[in-house]
Order: sequence, then structure tokens, then C-alpha cells
Amino acid sequence: MAKKLTSREQNYSQWYNEIVQEADLAENSGVKGCMVIKPYGYAIWEKMQAELDRMFKATGHVNAYPLFIPKSYFSKEASHVEGFAKECAIVTHYRLKNAEDGSGVVVDPTAKLEEELIVRPTSETIIWDTYRKWIQSYRDLPILVNQWANVVRWEMRTRLFLRTTEFLWQEGHTAHATKKEAIEETEQMIGIYADFAERFMAMPVVQGVKSVNERFAGAEETYCIEALMQDGKALQAGTSHFLGQNFAKAFDVKFATKEGKQEYVWASSWGVSTRLMGALIMTHSDDHGLVLPPKLAPFQVVIVPIYKGDEQLAQVSAVANKVKKSLEAKGITVKFDNRDTHKPGWKFAEYELKGVPLRLALGARDLENGTIEVARRDTLEKETYQITDIETKVEQLLEQIQENLYEKALTFREEKTYKTDSKDEFKKLIEQGGFVYAHWDGTSEAEELIKQETKATIRCIPLDAKEEDGVCLFSGNPSSKRVLFAKAY
Amino acid sequence: MAKKLTSREQNYSQWYNEIVQEADLAENSGVKGCMVIKPYGYAIWEKMQAELDRMFKATGHVNAYPLFIPKSYFSKEASHVEGFAKECAIVTHYRLKNAEDGSGVVVDPTAKLEEELIVRPTSETIIWDTYRKWIQSYRDLPILVNQWANVVRWEMRTRLFLRTTEFLWQEGHTAHATKKEAIEETEQMIGIYADFAERFMAMPVVQGVKSVNERFAGAEETYCIEALMQDGKALQAGTSHFLGQNFAKAFDVKFATKEGKQEYVWASSWGVSTRLMGALIMTHSDDHGLVLPPKLAPFQVVIVPIYKGDEQLAQVSAVANKVKKSLEAKGITVKFDNRDTHKPGWKFAEYELKGVPLRLALGARDLENGTIEVARRDTLEKETYQITDIETKVEQLLEQIQENLYEKALTFREEKTYKTDSKDEFKKLIEQGGFVYAHWDGTSEAEELIKQETKATIRCIPLDAKEEDGVCLFSGNPSSKRVLFAKAY
Repeated sequence: MAKKLTSREQNYSQWYNEIVQEADLAENSGVKGCMVIKPYGYAIWEKMQAELDRMFKATGHVNAYPLFIPKSYFSKEASHVEGFAKECAIVTHYRLKNAEDGSGVVVDPTAKLEEELIVRPTSETIIWDTYRKWIQSYRDLPILVNQWANVVRWEMRTRLFLRTTEFLWQEGHTAHATKKEAIEETEQMIGIYADFAERFMAMPVVQGVKSVNERFAGAEETYCIEALMQDGKALQAGTSHFLGQNFAKAFDVKFATKEGKQEYVWASSWGVSTRLMGALIMTHSDDHGLVLPPKLAPFQVVIVPIYKGDEQLAQVSAVANKVKKSLEAKGITVKFDNRDTHKPGWKFAEYELKGVPLRLALGARDLENGTIEVARRDTLEKETYQITDIETKVEQLLEQIQENLYEKALTFREEKTYKTDSKDEFKKLIEQGGFVYAHWDGTSEAEELIKQETKATIRCIPLDAKEEDGVCLFSGNPSSKRVLFAKAY
Repeated sequence: MAKKLTSREQNYSQWYNEIVQEADLAENSGVKGCMVIKPYGYAIWEKMQAELDRMFKATGHVNAYPLFIPKSYFSKEASHVEGFAKECAIVTHYRLKNAEDGSGVVVDPTAKLEEELIVRPTSETIIWDTYRKWIQSYRDLPILVNQWANVVRWEMRTRLFLRTTEFLWQEGHTAHATKKEAIEETEQMIGIYADFAERFMAMPVVQGVKSVNERFAGAEETYCIEALMQDGKALQAGTSHFLGQNFAKAFDVKFATKEGKQEYVWASSWGVSTRLMGALIMTHSDDHGLVLPPKLAPFQVVIVPIYKGDEQLAQVSAVANKVKKSLEAKGITVKFDNRDTHKPGWKFAEYELKGVPLRLALGARDLENGTIEVARRDTLEKETYQITDIETKVEQLLEQIQENLYEKALTFREEKTYKTDSKDEFKKLIEQGGFVYAHWDGTSEAEELIKQETKATIRCIPLDAKEEDGVCLFSGNPSSKRVLFAKAY
């Protein structure tokens, strides 16, 4: 029987770690801060990838691919080096040799690289060095390239999926002839991320732009989507950056306009990572384990046979396989777990833990009555249906679950979203957790002060923020709109 | 107009490099020996990936994922360290800092890792360290995991797709309760690679096992598929290794059998890489450029409009879009290139270079006559069809092209495959290029001698080799079957 999880109430962080481990999503690798994504976790990531890739391609993007970045490239864009040089893996040698004392292998000191290589923490520099060769004229624009890749950022405190030294992600890098087009691209992509988060992950998000302090190193504007986790902390789930001409200037990427003038290229970059897995877990899961939205579940339905002896198993299996086939014909993914190494009770607990949206149980008595038992993972409700209705029921239930998860998460967020004009209340609200809309004077000084006093950061200046006169809670200066505050992952 | 390629006759190697570059497949990155895979090349790799991934999953495999390997892991399997330690990227530091003289960034000497990390050249060691945690009993077996990943092997001489410092690949790592099952898995996977090479890449291959000298470092048997390139050199296109209990012993991975005994786990590993792109290029392409089998072409059909003025373009476009839609409805991928920035002649040359299987040209006169011109990339033949027949024709032609490419490659290989019992003739045949079947006494000494005298290596001991008494060409010792020799990439 699967182990009982620590409840969210007791220890939210422990609950998260246990779900990741017990639901077989990922584990720590032999390298500090690195993870091994296990097959069940990887299958969910593949579902995300497939859908995002489809969305990227539907908007005209293509994939391309590289890992190492020469150290010198990092120095070219001034703010970028500040932001990334401090947390990267540096390759200095290219050969090992046997230790002279026979104790194993050691780095061969004669195999030192002339210039060290950086394992990419993000690829703007190598990409823009490449684009210099790809772009000569307006005919070569726009370039709409995406890359599915691994990246490395040296992190002090790591957490499976949320913050690991190596992680998987996609990074889009686009090049445009005009500022307007580059901004439209940046906005289009944050829109696609929001759409994906809401329709596939069933996770409501707030779209906005970051304050200057929180911008990507090298960006002129950073758009983001922010989600609220069940412990009242915010999680940045995706970012899209308008890079202006910064990288084009740093890497000397110019193009000839239709009129024959030479101009610098405009750029965007955007990415989401395996961090989305952490967001998915923390948005929907409960004290019984993982809860998956049907659109991202590796299998949406599991059928567990209840039987005594081989003869009953054969009878139950015949019907179960028929149900499986008819569901699959409707495009529903089904696992029939007929292993004789585990008892039904063990399997029930296992698939509850793994968040399978629907569990069908089929026993000898069901065969007599022409029935089948269906359990929903989101509500934990069980109901018995006529087996003749099962395809229609399952189809309806999967849709309902997808919708219900979104509605539940949205309701949770709405209940935990506050508006205040009082500094004391602000502190209390931030302390207890949730999204807080409050006035801010737009200065980095006030932002820094708030962070120090409350640990809250400006998650974003929402795209749909209304103009509204107010007073900055901390500085007392005038403010023209509310921004979104929260403590964050 | 696209640049004229160097012919294969003139300089095969130069021809290859030009195709890779001119057909927009890949280019060198800013890091010596590393490549940037360009969107058109990546689209072909994605097609390969998608099909292989489907085949892997259809045989019960799942994907998982990690990058860094602690240095000490490498010492655990003795022959593995010999084979791989000499060609790897070593991460020694985790932070850069600003140089004191303001000249850029330098490695921060205080950020030295206690144990160096190796960027994986292949992942057996980290995988088996992980499997120790995953495997306790026979119930946990088999494990059938695949990983799509990047790997780094320090290479002195690099060549786009064929041998680069970083490359993309998949690596399967399976764990089994019995030797028999592990060998069956190893054989199944080489079979899948052969099937993929022949049915999708239209590239005939010989399946066999490697001689002891050519085995993977740490394997008990290495299966391979070998293809013949147009310059008469062999290319190893995929390998599948039976690893025995070597890695299980090195990483102490035991399981409890049904009877409760503790035994070491049996293993296989198998991989194909972006090297397949090189194989694809060199198998089919000609002096006009890339030739792609329809099953792997990013788009199978391109439609080029021939027109004067906007009015004609509008008329031609209306029909072209109708044709495009009707082809797409049959699952055929189509690009309609209506860019007004390039002339039809330029486009013809461009798509010939990029190997698009079928080019459709549609002009004002075609509209009057209800016709459309179709050009095959493989034979370069042009024919005019009634536009009403076009879907059926295109469908048939794509099938014919796929088949024709395979047949052509097979005929080429058969013509270049020899059998000899004379040492002098052997030397001559190897020198002129091709596959040579000859007797070999099975010793590493003779193999080494042959390699030194002729530069030929034993590509494999073919799985279908017949027992046949003979005499080793170089040692004069008795031999029981012929093995396959060639010079190789």
C-alpha cells in the first residue's frame, strides 16, 4: 500500500516533496542539485511539450538547436553578464586520465581549454552570434526559432522541478525588422503561455509585465504569467522578453532595409521550463497525492480488475479489454492494470497517488449486473454506471474534471486575492499568503523597501490594470494603478 | 540563384559540406567542433525522432531524463572509463566574475567544485547509479527507459552531423531479470533501427555484431547497422549493446528473484544520433543538392506560382491553395511559396537544393489548360498532368520516390559489394571503396594487421553470415565465415 502523505496543512513543502517522489515524477540525481525525471513525470512533460510545440508551430515558429557558449560571448551584453555569469557551469578541461596512484581518474592538466566554455544558462549570446550570419537583409526577417533544450544554472538551494541546477525548457529567439513587430511577438507568446496554462494545465494566471528590478538581464520589457499556489505563494510560470536592439548591438546584427539602409535587428526571447511541472503539482494536488488535468495525464483512465482466481480474471479481462478499446477509439488513453503481483486496494491507492483522472473498477458481480464503478480523482466521488453507457460517461467526466479543476483553482485564487490601501493590512495579507493588489509609486526604492519589510515582490504590473489614482503604501507618493504583490517561489 | 555545388566526383567531402551548408541543414557554432542545427535540418531530425519515438513506445519503452556525471562514477566500470574518459568535457568551476582589469569575465577561482563533473558522453554510469534505487525485486523489472538528450565527446576532427563535439541522440537503457531477455531486447532494438533505416530513411543496412576490438566500452556484445555511402565508405548508423551484468556489478544493482535469491541485473543500451542526418545526406543526395525520402521531408511538395503581375498571382494562388488543401487532406505536407521577393527560377533551384521530393509549378497557361507541371527530385523528370488528377498522382509519386530511393541505394550497394579470397584483390577493392566480404580468423591480431595494411575495419560479423570454411586472408589461419570489411566514417 502506498505511503500516506504528509498533509498540505501540516507541511506544504514536505507534501510537495513527497508527491514528487511517491508519484514517481522525479528524484535527485547523483549530482547535487540535479534531478532525474522519471518516466511518469517525463510523460507529463512530453504532453506539455507536444501541445506547446503544436502551438508554437501554429504561429509560424520552427525549432533549431547548441550547448556551449564561449566565455567571451558573455561579456558582450553588459546587463546580461551581470545577470547570468554568477550561476553557471564552466568547462575548463577536455580530458581525464588515470591517476598515477591507481585511485581512479583525474583531470588531465595538459588538456586545458584556451578559452573556457559555459554550459548555457540561456542561449541569447550564442544565438545572436549565429543570427549575425543568418541575417543580411529584410528578406531574412523575421526569424522565428524555438529550441527545446537543457540549461544549467548553479543554484544554492534546489527543489525538484521548481529550481534545479540542470533543467529542461524551450527558449524562443526571434528577430524582427521593426520594434512594433518584436513587441507584438513578445505579447503573442505570453498570450500563448497563458492560453496553455489555462486550457491545458487548468491553471489560472495573471498576465503582466515585470518591474525594472525583476526584468530579465538584457531585456527592455519582461512579460510574465503568474499563478497562485495552494500555500498562497506566487509562482512565475513563463516569461516573454522584448529585448529591444540590445543583443543585436552587442553582436553587431544589422540588416539592409527595403530602402537599403543598415539597421539593428529587434529581438524577443521567451521560455517555459520543467518548472511548469512544479506549478501543475502545486495547483491541483491534494493530501491523497497528485491530481492531473485530463489533458496532461499520461493515461486518463485506469481499469482495475477485481477477481478471485484465473477464471474470473479471464472473464473480467475480456470485458475490460472491450471497454479499453472502445474508449481508445474515442481518443481516450487507458491503462488496464491486470498485474497479478499487486492487490486491487494497492492499485487504487497507487493511481490515486499518481493522479489518474478516472479509475474504473470491474468485478465478477459487475459482469452479472452489467455495471462498472467509476471514481473521479478530483472529487474522489464514486458512482456505478451501466457498462453500455461507459464511453459517453467517461468522455463527459473527463471534460467535467478538466473544467472543474480550472474552476476550483480560479475560485481558490479569487478567494485569496485582496486589494488594500492600508500598509498594516498589506503586511498581514502578505504574511497569510495570497495575491495582493496595491498601489506602488513605480520606483525601485519603494519596491526594495516593500521587499525588505514584507518579503513580498511585485509579481507583475497586470496587463489589465485599470488607471486609478492612489497613494503608494510605503512611500506615500502618488500612484496611477495597482500592481500585484505576493511572496513567491 | 543558388550556388552550384562541387560534384561528388570532384570532391565528395567538399560536396557533403556544401550540401549541409547550402541546403540550410547546419553550420559550425562559435565553439570549435560544435554545430548549430538550422531549422530545415532540425525539421528532418524531428521527423526521425517522431517516428523512432513511436517505434520505441510501440515496443513498451518510456522516456526519462539527466546531464552531469560525477567524475568518480566513471572509474567504476573499468573498460568504460578507458573508452570514454579520454574525450569528455569537464566542469571544474561554477562561477564567473568580472576581471579586475575590466577586460571581461574570468573564472572565479574560489568557486572550484569539490568533485569535477563530466558532461555526459553517454549515460550508462549515471543511469545505473539511478537504477540501484529503482530496482529491488523482479517486480521492478524489466525497466525499458529511453532518453532523448545531448551528449559531448571531445573530438579532434569534426564534421557537421558525422562527428561533432556536442550532438543530439537517444539512448535506451534497459534492465532485465535474465540474460536471455536482455539479449532479446538488444536484438529487438537493432532490428528496430534497421527497420527505421530501410523504411523511413530508404537506406539499406547490414545488421551484424562488432568484433571485440570495435565493441562499445563496457559491452559484452555490440550489434550494429552498417550502411554504404556513395564514396564507397561505410557508416555505422546505430548500435545496440548487450552489457551483461557489467554495469550492475559496477554499481551494485541486485534484485530479489521470485525465489528470493539476490542476483545482478542484466542490461542493454542502444542509441542513434544526429549522425543519421549525415547518413541520410550521403545516401541519396546528388550533385544538384539534397534528396530527401518523402517520409522524412519537412514538406513533401512545394508549389511554385509562375505569374506576371498581381492579377495573375491572385488567379494562380486561388488554384494553388485549392491544390494545397486537397493534398493536405490526404496527409501530404505542402508548402506554397508565393513570396514576391524571389523569382520562380531561384525557387526551383532552392527547392532542388533542399531536396523537396515533388515540385509543382502552376502558371497562367496551366489555368487555361487545366494542367499542372510536376517535377520529381529523385529522377529530375518533369511531367504535366491534368489538375483534376493531381492528388492521386502526387500520392503515387511520393510512394514511388520513397521506393525508388531505397532500390537505387540498394542497387548501388550491391554493385559495390564484393567477395574475395585473394589478399591482393582485397587490398584493391578496399582501396577503390565498397563492402568486401572476406574470411578472417577471429583474432584481434589479424584484425589489427588488416587495419594497418589497408585502413579497412571489420564493420561487422553479419547476423545472416553463412557457415563456410575458408582461410583468413592475412593470417592464413582457418575461418568459418566471412565478415564485412570496409573503410569507414
